[in-house]
Amino acid sequence: MAIGAQVGYRDLAGFGRRRIDYDLGELRDDILYQVGALEAFCRVAGGQVDYVKPHGALYNTAAVDEGQASAVVAAVRAYDPALPVLCQPGSVLARLAAVAGLTVVGEGFADRGYRADGTLVPRTADGAIVDSPDQVVARAVRMVTAGEVETADGTVVPCPVGSICLHGDTPGAVDLAARVRAGLLGAGRAVAPFVAWPLG
Amino acid sequence: MAIGAQVGYRDLAGFGRRRIDYDLGELRDDILYQVGALEAFCRVAGGQVDYVKPHGALYNTAAVDEGQASAVVAAVRAYDPALPVLCQPGSVLARLAAVAGLTVVGEGFADRGYRADGTLVPRTADGAIVDSPDQVVARAVRMVTAGEVETADGTVVPCPVGSICLHGDTPGAVDLAARVRAGLLGAGRAVAPFVAWPLG
Amino acid sequence: MAIGAQVGYRDLAGFGRRRIDYDLGELRDDILYQVGALEAFCRVAGGQVDYVKPHGALYNTAAVDEGQASAVVAAVRAYDPALPVLCQPGSVLARLAAVAGLTVVGEGFADRGYRADGTLVPRTADGAIVDSPDQVVARAVRMVTAGEVETADGTVVPCPVGSICLHGDTPGAVDLAARVRAGLLGAGRAVAPFVAWPLG
Amino acid sequence: MAIGAQVGYRDLAGFGRRRIDYDLGELRDDILYQVGALEAFCRVAGGQVDYVKPHGALYNTAAVDEGQASAVVAAVRAYDPALPVLCQPGSVLARLAAVAGLTVVGEGFADRGYRADGTLVPRTADGAIVDSPDQVVARAVRMVTAGEVETADGTVVPCPVGSICLHGDTPGAVDLAARVRAGLLGAGRAVAPFVAWPLG
Repeated sequence: MAIGAQVGYRDLAGFGRRRIDYDLGELRDDILYQVGALEAFCRVAGGQVDYVKPHGALYNTAAVDEGQASAVVAAVRAYDPALPVLCQPGSVLARLAAVAGLTVVGEGFADRGYRADGTLVPRTADGAIVDSPDQVVARAVRMVTAGEVETADGTVVPCPVGSICLHGDTPGAVDLAARVRAGLLGAGRAVAPFVAWPLG
Repeated sequence: MAIGAQVGYRDLAGFGRRRIDYDLGELRDDILYQVGALEAFCRVAGGQVDYVKPHGALYNTAAVDEGQASAVVAAVRAYDPALPVLCQPGSVLARLAAVAGLTVVGEGFADRGYRADGTLVPRTADGAIVDSPDQVVARAVRMVTAGEVETADGTVVPCPVGSICLHGDTPGAVDLAARVRAGLLGAGRAVAPFVAWPLG
Repeated sequence: MAIGAQVGYRDLAGFGRRRIDYDLGELRDDILYQVGALEAFCRVAGGQVDYVKPHGALYNTAAVDEGQASAVVAAVRAYDPALPVLCQPGSVLARLAAVAGLTVVGEGFADRGYRADGTLVPRTADGAIVDSPDQVVARAVRMVTAGEVETADGTVVPCPVGSICLHGDTPGAVDLAARVRAGLLGAGRAVAPFVAWPLG
Repeated sequence: MAIGAQVGYRDLAGFGRRRIDYDLGELRDDILYQVGALEAFCRVAGGQVDYVKPHGALYNTAAVDEGQASAVVAAVRAYDPALPVLCQPGSVLARLAAVAGLTVVGEGFADRGYRADGTLVPRTADGAIVDSPDQVVARAVRMVTAGEVETADGTVVPCPVGSICLHGDTPGAVDLAARVRAGLLGAGRAVAPFVAWPLG
């Protein structure tokens, strides 16, 4: 197990799911604030913040917006440049974090549809969710082993990932996680926290 | 210079100045949250949290209430038992922190009137504020060298302090600070952050 | 159906369930703020605020504290002195509201144990909850018809109520509500929103 | 004097000055909440909400974004369709509010530079502020009497206004207000709250 700081906008009422046009220095500071607060609880519980992942609307915005992506990068660099950043492969954040010398770990969504540009099909559109457990497993294995995913319209796009995200509130999530794990092991891939890897 | 975490209730609207009857576990956690957040900014700026002092209504409540005092103690012990706690000499918090093995530093208010039980004259009552700069200096020196203070009704009570608090928004505060410093030096006392002392 | 403003402290994190030592003018204003906000939604939905009831820790504090009770009274008087106040019979709030000329409606808790002073047995103590549906109905009928309730230690105390509170998250709450209603009708009492009564 | 509800995003930390991508139903509701809360204080103080004006980032966003503009319109229509909406002349909000049958009052900024599209020169750019009091007066009079303003690059664009905004924190604001008032009176225009006009 590893502990990540899933940092987001200061917007409790919106649960961090509404894009906010932040002053970038304030965004950096709000991220530092959250990482530090979590670090205190980790210290008390006997652990540490192992990586950083943007939450909600910040995840999606930092994937395409240079300003907000750079605020995330600035926060991580200032706090601990050894902390990996978990984000969408090919995103603006992935690029800027790599340029800044941070460790970048690509994240794949095994149960979500992708578009040709590598972004997710919005939840409100057809093809947003992959229902079949067999397909979820197959997609996860393909992302991890081949670094690619088939989009909703049938093309294949790059999607090199080091981490698979399964939402805990998906019905049958525990069973699905066990299947994905078995699929990855069957494909010869170890499953372990990426913070324990010999990265970089 | 030293950096202290002045921790308080989660009550931005009331600026932490209204007593709240907290669940004690939640109070401990809110304190940890604030200490951790400040620690992150210290780390980025090149420092660290050097001590903890309760803010506003928590300061006054932890001085008399065993439950809230124990929540402050629990937070500091869990986070870093080497962190000094700055509080009212003779208070419940001072006693519980000492029992728990924490370093306790007594704080004196050179420009405030005291009552016979060692607490401050409330701001709304006569004798709350000491106006004369000469008296402020004399009181500070007496607290530090003799460990005592004269109350509003003329008796002398114990007040052993290692730190003098001057509010930055008092008119003439900078000049007053210089005078207090000169007074302490004149009495043969060094002025330095208490976190640099050979405490304990 | 009638709509009441269940007004409380400004403490979203604590859901209004922690006592706060408010400045009384600010408490009055926070209550007005909430009543006004609800009134806007009522207006849009085709209704109006029909009564005011304190929520959570404010309910319990205004039952015993003259200052906070008077802040509730001041808010209702200023906003609309015709609005009934729903509160614990015999409480400080009930008394002050009546003195101020407001309409007071006593509230009974059919599924809660009472103490000899007319207050509720705390949820953490034995006898806090009345489990038997038959007893709940019998107690509700007795409160409404005889204006009294049997306490946990077997004595009978006054409890004259015009409203019965059943918590929606009690298991079987809907069935219990139907039984209480049937019990009251069987005892010859009509069940209707008290705001429709010819009060006063 | 007249009282307007200057409604904005639910973002106390950002003082409503950061654009937020709201769910439009939630934005409508947050606006209703604020109007209702202010109405309660008006009722207690002996007045009423006389008009609605968006605040901060909502002002600027509703000027160009159909979704957010329609949320403002929906709130005002649902609450009281007789309430005037104060906004930028020619803006999306002005257009949608008029289409919805609301009374629209154009607002002019006498001390701000305008661009060719009728929007303000951003505060960070050259020409954002008009410093000369004589020019401020002249511009105000021209907006009110001729319905036009000269832009930073010297062209003249339509700017038909019924209200002039002067910021209270501008140095010399009171004197400037007196001059603008005198200028308008000198041009034969009465100065009065627009809510007292025989509008529409």
